[in-house]
Amino acid sequence: MIDLYTWTTPNGRKVSIMLEETGLDYAAHPVNLQMQEQFKPEFLLISPNNRIPAIIDQDAEGGPVSVFESGAILIYLAEKTGQFLPASGAARAKVLEWLMWQMSGVGPMMGQASHFINSAPEQIPYAINRYLEESARLIRLLDDQLAEREFVAGEYSIADMAIYPWVSAGFEAIRNAKPDMVGDAANCVRWIDALKARPAVAKGMAVPEV
Amino acid sequence: MIDLYTWTTPNGRKVSIMLEETGLDYAAHPVNLQMQEQFKPEFLLISPNNRIPAIIDQDAEGGPVSVFESGAILIYLAEKTGQFLPASGAARAKVLEWLMWQMSGVGPMMGQASHFINSAPEQIPYAINRYLEESARLIRLLDDQLAEREFVAGEYSIADMAIYPWVSAGFEAIRNAKPDMVGDAANCVRWIDALKARPAVAKGMAVPEV
Repeated sequence: MIDLYTWTTPNGRKVSIMLEETGLDYAAHPVNLQMQEQFKPEFLLISPNNRIPAIIDQDAEGGPVSVFESGAILIYLAEKTGQFLPASGAARAKVLEWLMWQMSGVGPMMGQASHFINSAPEQIPYAINRYLEESARLIRLLDDQLAEREFVAGEYSIADMAIYPWVSAGFEAIRNAKPDMVGDAANCVRWIDALKARPAVAKGMAVPEV
Repeated sequence: MIDLYTWTTPNGRKVSIMLEETGLDYAAHPVNLQMQEQFKPEFLLISPNNRIPAIIDQDAEGGPVSVFESGAILIYLAEKTGQFLPASGAARAKVLEWLMWQMSGVGPMMGQASHFINSAPEQIPYAINRYLEESARLIRLLDDQLAEREFVAGEYSIADMAIYPWVSAGFEAIRNAKPDMVGDAANCVRWIDALKARPAVAKGMAVPEV
């Protein structure tokens, strides 16, 4: 049994998608960010950076193992199950580089765009434009990458699961606000539709129920 | 032989430190960011996101393998050599979560602080304060983590190598600008001094020669 501590955000959904794809037995525990539950002492014990998602693998060899950071959890679950991350060689390196591209670029930059558009106490045009432009650049790069591949790193992998929850929302938001920034991004659209059609992705995107 | 494409920035230094620590044979090729060399077509072939560092492992089984994204390169080199990343279990999970914490938090947020302080065309107090506060919070968290451990994830690992180039510079900058934000951070200071004293770290921090 895996205990998943999560909320209705892209980083949480990466992990619920992976749990659905692998068929691992898990229980989702909502950590309500609006209620500041990520600062509760019992949550900080497993996620000291006060961020969801985090997991506890109750069945790990040698006793329960907790993991925070969505990217680390994806690798942990891939290695536990032997799925969605090749064991070695160039195929493994390609998955890890695009997973890291999501962790270091797509997530932080789309997160900043969302902050300056939706949450900052003042509208700051320079900052809004900076993060929209960077988010759009990342989507155009993803579109190029998908021109010659069905999935981001070739075969379907944890890189797709990491990128999908961010890009499916971010692409829609940018296309509505500034359509010229991303163009038609036909390869991205095809990839988004393909992931959306996977039952495990649909189920994972609905976790946690609130 | 590993070909390392890099520049004089924290993300580049993570990898040169790891190459020095492992003793792998490598050649550093400067990619001059001031000259916009990261946009050259031959570099984009191995690093389509136009970011350093990137490597080509000329001795990989089955032919040369290229890897971009510093975090992916660190995992690749750790698995190639069997060093600085435990092979399984909780010890491996702890290294990966703190590596991801650097990739998704420390790097992007300190990078934004640097942008708004040093590079943005206008001084925007809200943005400067947002990223300084977040950078300081991350340093205080690292200080807590180091209170009971010699290194970030227990044993010396790729997580330390990823965090050190960013935090050693960022801590100094914040302490000079806003000393109250980070306090004395005695555990961080002890850890920074310990890493600085490692010959491989000193050598890696001087790459590339320019």
